[in-house]
Amino acid sequence: MEKVIIAEKLKLFSEYWSPKIVGELNGQQVKLAKFKGEFVWHKHDDEDEMFLVIEGILKMELRDKTIEIQKNEFLIVPRGTEHRPVADEEVAVMLFEPTSTLNTGNTKNELTKHHLDKI
Amino acid sequence: MEKVIIAEKLKLFSEYWSPKIVGELNGQQVKLAKFKGEFVWHKHDDEDEMFLVIEGILKMELRDKTIEIQKNEFLIVPRGTEHRPVADEEVAVMLFEPTSTLNTGNTKNELTKHHLDKI
Repeated sequence: MEKVIIAEKLKLFSEYWSPKIVGELNGQQVKLAKFKGEFVWHKHDDEDEMFLVIEGILKMELRDKTIEIQKNEFLIVPRGTEHRPVADEEVAVMLFEPTSTLNTGNTKNELTKHHLDKI
Repeated sequence: MEKVIIAEKLKLFSEYWSPKIVGELNGQQVKLAKFKGEFVWHKHDDEDEMFLVIEGILKMELRDKTIEIQKNEFLIVPRGTEHRPVADEEVAVMLFEPTSTLNTGNTKNELTKHHLDKI
């Protein structure tokens, strides 16, 4: 059993939109990701998704509004809700979601990651 | 759907060892708690437990070692592992764990919280 130092893990990768697994518990995964630019609109039919901002500002676009999430703030996007993460500048995010969760949800494209590395 | 500002939630309570529910997803709860002093030795037979330190320093005593967890670091304590959180000074912690998790695990005493408030 070892603690995870988030800042150290963030130094280990630089690619955007490619979550890394940094913890697992109770069928859930804790992931770290860096976002920059606009992701793809998608939803997760069976999974709620939590975004905790570690550094930077994340804009979560929903169909009816946009929620701006800053450092030490989090948003839970309920299953079935279409959303699109947007980051004008680089943002570091911690994700908390079931092991089954695919990053692009119901939208499969070149951004879809079928395998996530553990770091 | 609203974001959660952790600092704002932490202003809403002052008691120690009394986690508050600030989010729910996928059968899991996100909780905030303040610790100070020594908790009770306990384990959770069926739940892994994640401690993410928001402010301060948390010492997690295990039977064979003690792990010091600082701000922006986290520890996952696997089910079945005896542990005792200790905080020399006040520490604010975010917990991720299944809805079924009792704060004192298999040890029931005056610190046991059978009902947690949502804030």
